[in-house]
Amino acid sequence: MVLSWDSPIRHELDMVEAEMQKSVFSEQAILTEISLYVIGSGGKRIRPAIALLAFKANGGADDDVHRVIKVASAFEMIHAATLIHDDINDAGELRRGREAAYKRYGVQKALIAGDFLFVRSFRLGGMFDEHIVNMVADACTAIAESEILQAVHELDPDTRMKEYIKIVEGKTAKPIEAGARVGAYLAKASFQATEDMGSYGLNLGIAFQIIDDILDVTGNQSTLGKPRGVDFMDGKPNLVLLNAMGDPAVGEELRALFVKKNKTREDLDAALALVARTKAVARAKEIAKEYTTKAEVALAQLPESDHKRSMKILAETLVDRNT
Amino acid sequence: MVLSWDSPIRHELDMVEAEMQKSVFSEQAILTEISLYVIGSGGKRIRPAIALLAFKANGGADDDVHRVIKVASAFEMIHAATLIHDDINDAGELRRGREAAYKRYGVQKALIAGDFLFVRSFRLGGMFDEHIVNMVADACTAIAESEILQAVHELDPDTRMKEYIKIVEGKTAKPIEAGARVGAYLAKASFQATEDMGSYGLNLGIAFQIIDDILDVTGNQSTLGKPRGVDFMDGKPNLVLLNAMGDPAVGEELRALFVKKNKTREDLDAALALVARTKAVARAKEIAKEYTTKAEVALAQLPESDHKRSMKILAETLVDRNT
Repeated sequence: MVLSWDSPIRHELDMVEAEMQKSVFSEQAILTEISLYVIGSGGKRIRPAIALLAFKANGGADDDVHRVIKVASAFEMIHAATLIHDDINDAGELRRGREAAYKRYGVQKALIAGDFLFVRSFRLGGMFDEHIVNMVADACTAIAESEILQAVHELDPDTRMKEYIKIVEGKTAKPIEAGARVGAYLAKASFQATEDMGSYGLNLGIAFQIIDDILDVTGNQSTLGKPRGVDFMDGKPNLVLLNAMGDPAVGEELRALFVKKNKTREDLDAALALVARTKAVARAKEIAKEYTTKAEVALAQLPESDHKRSMKILAETLVDRNT
Repeated sequence: MVLSWDSPIRHELDMVEAEMQKSVFSEQAILTEISLYVIGSGGKRIRPAIALLAFKANGGADDDVHRVIKVASAFEMIHAATLIHDDINDAGELRRGREAAYKRYGVQKALIAGDFLFVRSFRLGGMFDEHIVNMVADACTAIAESEILQAVHELDPDTRMKEYIKIVEGKTAKPIEAGARVGAYLAKASFQATEDMGSYGLNLGIAFQIIDDILDVTGNQSTLGKPRGVDFMDGKPNLVLLNAMGDPAVGEELRALFVKKNKTREDLDAALALVARTKAVARAKEIAKEYTTKAEVALAQLPESDHKRSMKILAETLVDRNT
């Protein structure tokens, strides 16, 4: 029987679920309901998983596992809070196959529930020393900063690779990096081992987002839980679109569609047909692969264990994921 | 020469300003700009002031003053974050005499800037022990919960006094209470002295909000920095409106206007004329006075000092403020 990558931390991931459910309790039942609606709508739990794996792979003591579970939960709840606020900002109607929270509960309550989730996340993250608080807060700052950068590059077909990577780092990779670092830190890993875990998290996170970009172009609603082409419709220059807009044959035509403010369904179909004529998806996959390779390299000094094996499998299979 | 209540903490309040300016630095200049726009638009700095006074009046050591300044700044920044998000939710166009942040910078950037301010507040508050983190987080939870309760009672003329007070506690009084408690705690005050400071802050905060309610009805745009009657227009049952809606002579007519969803300028004029025929404002002032008296009583055991005197003056003169 082939075990899935998360089998060595199945129990701890269950504890993360329990911690999150406990943490979102409010005397205002609607805040708990909205929080659970978003948290409970699936998601890959990649953030807590990597924090847990980094902790375990570095020999974290059983006595400290409750600590890493709290911080791991905080990272997932921060992620949920940003999803709620992002959907308000992007007017995204579907999220993980369900109505976005603001569509279901109204903007007012969803906005407050996002704030509430931030607060409860910080309550969890703030239980520990200043070093951890700073890692959590810096990851959240990076999220906010990358959202601004993303807004700046909306409808910008000339977004450079450097800027694209900076957006991806902030919105996805740095929070994952921070989780990995916190896991290693709580396991009392050495400075170098903590750096290595950070490098693993950062590179895996970038690859993870690039695959998201690819799926946004190649996926379908039933596997994505949202329509495909959302990035194109929102004017977000994802890596596949950027690659395709640089293509000598179709680039110019695609750019003209991409910069339109109010895009139609026909624009999307035309854009996707143009992308399909390029090697943009294959090129994006190659780039993702470069990052997962970097993530694997960062594991070199880590002693062998089931948890290290999981981290390797995660990196190796990431580029093949289709949901 | 009569000194103002804040003269004994003038220097510390300046340090709060400096701390806030430092804390909102971001490599995304727009986040700093929006933060400074909101923080810099005035406001009475009542939150940091009470934290500082509670610290000083309880003999806080000079060596610890940098700590209380950090937490005091965090409370003011949390307040600024909630103002940004509240204005988005209420579509409030003016705030402290200036365009609301979301009107000036757009909803998207304002929403992110509010999140950013929350994060930076928590970074400041999270530098200390778990007890302080919990006080800060609980105050923020209370804010979110009271915003929900406020939404529930929108257009509700039957809001009870108990519910009204709960809303006021959450949105204004509990954050002030928490600041007062943190100030006393950092001054290593006794359990009882810390409770007393909390009681002072809570009761003063309630009175403060009631005066805000009164000014919303009796003030004018040049002193308020926003139009009067905003609570009526937004369907928020403030204390003056609740009092007046209970009036035997005009209550019924006022209720009919209050529950309208889309109110006109004429509705507002009619409502304010009805309120003026009641003793609602005077009654609200009496209630505010009851709370400031409770706040003063909470100071009884505090040794005499310039700082205690300031706290007394603040409580005594609060009901007479007109801005």
